[in-house]
Amino acid sequence: MSKLPAHVTIREVCLRDGLQIEEPISLAAKIELLEAVVATGVREVEATAFVSPSKVPALADAEQFATELKRFDGVEFSALVASPNGARRALAAGLNSIEYVVSAADSHSRANVGRGTAEATAAIAEVLEIARDGGATLEVIVATAWDCPFDGPTPPQRVLDIVTAACRVGVDRIAIADTIGTATPRRVGALLAGVQPIVGDTPLGAHFHNTRGAGLASAYAAVQAGVTRLDAAIGGLGGCPFAPGASGNIATEDLVYLLRDSDIETGVDLTKAIEAAAVAQRVIGHELPSSLLRAGDRILS
Amino acid sequence: MSKLPAHVTIREVCLRDGLQIEEPISLAAKIELLEAVVATGVREVEATAFVSPSKVPALADAEQFATELKRFDGVEFSALVASPNGARRALAAGLNSIEYVVSAADSHSRANVGRGTAEATAAIAEVLEIARDGGATLEVIVATAWDCPFDGPTPPQRVLDIVTAACRVGVDRIAIADTIGTATPRRVGALLAGVQPIVGDTPLGAHFHNTRGAGLASAYAAVQAGVTRLDAAIGGLGGCPFAPGASGNIATEDLVYLLRDSDIETGVDLTKAIEAAAVAQRVIGHELPSSLLRAGDRILS
Repeated sequence: MSKLPAHVTIREVCLRDGLQIEEPISLAAKIELLEAVVATGVREVEATAFVSPSKVPALADAEQFATELKRFDGVEFSALVASPNGARRALAAGLNSIEYVVSAADSHSRANVGRGTAEATAAIAEVLEIARDGGATLEVIVATAWDCPFDGPTPPQRVLDIVTAACRVGVDRIAIADTIGTATPRRVGALLAGVQPIVGDTPLGAHFHNTRGAGLASAYAAVQAGVTRLDAAIGGLGGCPFAPGASGNIATEDLVYLLRDSDIETGVDLTKAIEAAAVAQRVIGHELPSSLLRAGDRILS
Repeated sequence: MSKLPAHVTIREVCLRDGLQIEEPISLAAKIELLEAVVATGVREVEATAFVSPSKVPALADAEQFATELKRFDGVEFSALVASPNGARRALAAGLNSIEYVVSAADSHSRANVGRGTAEATAAIAEVLEIARDGGATLEVIVATAWDCPFDGPTPPQRVLDIVTAACRVGVDRIAIADTIGTATPRRVGALLAGVQPIVGDTPLGAHFHNTRGAGLASAYAAVQAGVTRLDAAIGGLGGCPFAPGASGNIATEDLVYLLRDSDIETGVDLTKAIEAAAVAQRVIGHELPSSLLRAGDRILS
C-alpha cells in the first residue's frame, strides 16, 4: 500500500456545489449553514459561484453572500467561475481565491458554458491575468475528468492537455473533478498517475461525488495516489442534474471519519461536522445522504 | 498498488442479513426476491439463518424457505447458524453449506448468542463435526472483527485467535465481518495482513456494511489485501440494530460496478442486479440505500 500523507486539506463545498441544484434558500439560511461549517474547523470553503443567475438561481445572491464572508477570520473563501467575466465579478465582490472550471468533455463543456474544451482551455491565461491583477490566486478545476454524461468515458489525454496548459501559464492549484460521480479507485489511480508528473509541485486536489457509491473509495484512492486536497460537502449535499435523486458530493463527515481512521489529519472536528450536517438538512428541508448523520461516530474506546 | 485478482466471488446475503432486521415479509415475496437474485448470475446465496425465531422473526420461516431452494440449479445456498443446534436444523432442512458465526467481542457475543467468544470458539469443532456428518461444508464468520457496539475496538488478536482455532480443525472457509459498519481501508488492510498467513490456502472472505459510508472503500481494500470473496446485499438491504436508519450491507450492484471498473470479474450482471434491487425495494416497501438503483450505470461508450 502506498504511503499515506500526514495531512489532507478538505475544502468544504456545500455552499456552492452542494446548494447548486437545490431550490434557492434564503441568505439567512446560508449564513446559518456557513457558521456551522466554519465551526467544524475547516479552513477552505468554496463559498459561491459567479455564473449565470438564471442558470443557477440558488447562487444568484453571490455578490450579497460574498459581503457576509468578511467577518470570518482565518478561512480562505473561494468562488467558482466559468468565464473571464465571472472572475471579474468574483474579484469585484471581494473574493481572492478563484476556481476556473474547464470541462474535459466537449459536450459537457458546451452544455455548461456554451463553448468547447479547447476554447475554455485557451481562456485560462486570461482568467489568470484577471486573478493576478486583482491579487487573487487561481485554481483550475478539470470537470468531467473521468466521464461525461453525453460523451461517455473522457479520453485521459484530454485531461492531461488541460492540466498541461494550466501549469504552463502557472496557475496556483489544479483539481481533477468527477463531476457526475462515476469514478472508481482503479481509474482514479490511473488518471492521477498521468497528472502527477505534469503538476509537479503545484498543489493537486480531487473532487468526487458519491453518485454510484464509490465516492469515498475514489477519494481514498486519490490520497493513495498523492493527492493532498479533497473537496467534500457537509451532509453529502449536492446532486447531479443527470441522476435525479442520487447522492451528491462525498459527505465531509464521512470523509473525515475515514481519514481520521487512516491517521490522516484534516483539522476538521468530526462531531462539529455531524452537527453541521444536521443544520444543512434542516435548512435544505429534505433528507441528506450523509452516513454519519444517521449512524454517528463509532465507539473509540 | 497491489495486484488485483481477476475474479472475486460475491455471496448474495440480502435474503438473510438483508432481511434480518426488517419486518417479516411473506414467503411469496421472499421467493420473488430470490428469483430476481438468482437471475443476476450470482452463484452463492446466503439463504437464511437457523437461529431463534423469536429473536429474528423475519427468518422464522427458515425451514419452509429452504424447501424452495431445491429448484434452483447451480447455486450454492448457505445458512447462518450460531450454535450446534442451528447447524443440525440447517442440515435437516437440506442445506449443505453452513456458516457458523463467532463474535470476536465478548459483549456482542453474549448479547447475540448468550455466551462469550471463548465458548463460541470452542464449539467450532462440534459444528464442524455436525457439518461433516451431514455432508456439508463449514465457513466460520468472525463477527465484530473491527469494532463492537459495546466494547469499542476489537483487539486484533481476538480475531486471529478465532481464525487460528477454525483453521486448526480444518473448516472450509473463513470470513471476517464488519458487523456494525465501522471499518475503514487502513484497518481492513492491517487486520487482513494478520489473518492471511494463518488462513493460508483456506478461502478467505470479507463482509462489510456501509453504515458509515466506507463500505465499498473497505471492500476494495480487502480485495487489495488478497480477499477473493465478498458478501453483499442487493439494494444495500439490511441495517444495523445499533444504528437505526443507517445503511445496511454494501449494495451488490454498487460493488459490481466498482469491481467491473477494476477489471475484476464477478459473474453478476449489473443490469439484472439493478433490476433485483428494484424488486427488493418493492417487496420491502421502503427506500433502499442502493446508489445504482437511483443513478443507473454510467455511459460506457
